[in-house]
Amino acid sequence: VSSHLELELAEQPEALARLIDRQRANAESIASLFRRPDVQYILIASRGSSSNAARYAQYVLGRAHRVPVAFATPSLYTLYEQPPRLDGALVVGISQSGESPDVKAVIEEAGRQGRPTVAITNDPASPLAVASDAVLPIEAGSEQAVAATKTYINSLGAIALLFAATTGAGLGELADVPEQLGRQLELSRTSAEALELLDGGTVIARGVNYGTAFEIALKIRELSGLLFEAYSGADLMHGPVAAISPGWPVFAVAPSGPACASVAEAIDGVARRGARLIIASDDQTLLARAAVAFPLLPGVPEWLSPLTSVVPGQLAALRLARLRGIDLDRPLGLSKVTLTR
Amino acid sequence: VSSHLELELAEQPEALARLIDRQRANAESIASLFRRPDVQYILIASRGSSSNAARYAQYVLGRAHRVPVAFATPSLYTLYEQPPRLDGALVVGISQSGESPDVKAVIEEAGRQGRPTVAITNDPASPLAVASDAVLPIEAGSEQAVAATKTYINSLGAIALLFAATTGAGLGELADVPEQLGRQLELSRTSAEALELLDGGTVIARGVNYGTAFEIALKIRELSGLLFEAYSGADLMHGPVAAISPGWPVFAVAPSGPACASVAEAIDGVARRGARLIIASDDQTLLARAAVAFPLLPGVPEWLSPLTSVVPGQLAALRLARLRGIDLDRPLGLSKVTLTR
Repeated sequence: VSSHLELELAEQPEALARLIDRQRANAESIASLFRRPDVQYILIASRGSSSNAARYAQYVLGRAHRVPVAFATPSLYTLYEQPPRLDGALVVGISQSGESPDVKAVIEEAGRQGRPTVAITNDPASPLAVASDAVLPIEAGSEQAVAATKTYINSLGAIALLFAATTGAGLGELADVPEQLGRQLELSRTSAEALELLDGGTVIARGVNYGTAFEIALKIRELSGLLFEAYSGADLMHGPVAAISPGWPVFAVAPSGPACASVAEAIDGVARRGARLIIASDDQTLLARAAVAFPLLPGVPEWLSPLTSVVPGQLAALRLARLRGIDLDRPLGLSKVTLTR
Repeated sequence: VSSHLELELAEQPEALARLIDRQRANAESIASLFRRPDVQYILIASRGSSSNAARYAQYVLGRAHRVPVAFATPSLYTLYEQPPRLDGALVVGISQSGESPDVKAVIEEAGRQGRPTVAITNDPASPLAVASDAVLPIEAGSEQAVAATKTYINSLGAIALLFAATTGAGLGELADVPEQLGRQLELSRTSAEALELLDGGTVIARGVNYGTAFEIALKIRELSGLLFEAYSGADLMHGPVAAISPGWPVFAVAPSGPACASVAEAIDGVARRGARLIIASDDQTLLARAAVAFPLLPGVPEWLSPLTSVVPGQLAALRLARLRGIDLDRPLGLSKVTLTR
């Protein structure tokens, strides 16, 4: 092991266990903000990998609080200087660095309007954290590689902690995930070795793993420079499937659960077009259809599956970057923090 | 002219004029629903091209009503059967056919919860329209080609009508757009001829034209089968830019306005990576940087620019489909209506 990226991938189980241990009580106190009777919806501001964590929050916090979870349009706050009225909103900023100016702009506007604000960040002293009423540190420790790995998993973990704190259920299931994550890493290392160099690919998922598809596409793209994209299996069938030609790789994320049948339908659709199937699933029938199979550890509850089902994608990204001879820690001229106004 | 697609592209100015003429009064009556004091945010359900129109609504209705505009997560209503509480929401369904079961499921749930609902659809007798409190027909007339063109423009037009009805301003500007749209079609026909066959491409925009980028990518993809994708210029710089390699086509949509400088920054970023620039703009300095320039008609107000700035993309899609010898009305095995649960 010679790169920060590989070290940080391996650290993920430990980092997640640390988060659960240290932030459980804080998450319970923050969850009371979400239960304020004037909170009618949740608004999230984020960029990059944090936006993929936000997509997890959209499902998980939506189900915990039974309110819609919306994404802010930062340019209305910055470029257009026409921020909306936020009556009824609880506003969450997600940023591993806590430095994104546009995410902070949304939080600051919410503060001016007297709305409750929560920062989910790896740096509790960051500008985002300082601007927020409450801070849930993700406790990932220092991350040196440009590509977010343990900060992504721990952003999901922080959202899962808020779910458990709100519903009073699921903490036991979450406590099992660090160990499951370690086993998933081992399991996926072997599968990734079967991957040969690709021209690009399309990642599909649905429901709670919608964000997983985006994170896998982003990770492969950042690390290997290959053109990967992500779709909800449902949206893909509304036209974009036209670009799936024979041999084009489609990476389907299909853990067991309510969304699995819908992803399986999309797999049927792309298979009819001759796509080359890469499938991450705990369903043996689905795995048997894959050119490259990434078995998912069975027994992970669906609501927590994004924490383990992203791992095949992380290791596929590592494998593809290696096959292309790319610097794992500073790939393709990217920098760790991107500031957007 | 031998295809429905070409006829329908040419019909766009007339179809938009018809919408404005017939639905102005109805839009004013529907706008009163948006002004109900208990409406704290707007929730939109949509799929396909209608989701790109929804992105326009996110900016335009957000600015008109100064409330956040959120997108529904239909799978919470269907696959997961855990619909959120919709207190404070006004719910809008956008579907040209009005047949999408999951869009209808969101509207029906809102109705059960006593929340106001509006359908924007080309079929006022469709299941979506019947399930909604109010219907804004987009008056596009029958659309035969699989790829949505005039129904897309008129969905934007319907949203612009709601903006004008709410703010009491802009109707005069909107009334000029049909004629401008006709001139934009002429202008872009010539530019499109300069386009040679491409391997694929990345469309970028920001702000009010964010949805335009997605619609252009979708249109090219549907008609030509080429792998096109869309990004906010801001999001692209958070990692995905790594896949922009020398010669890769980047199609930037950059009409004058508050978002233009941000798109110009992204153009700088991809130019440093050697991207081949296709630029739609009314800014001569930007156009001069393009390998293929699509001049945008000057004088279209920024808030209405999505109705004309999508045209270069529509004609690029037509051109690329022709170069590939694809059936324009029924490309690549797609069908007109896709039903998603």
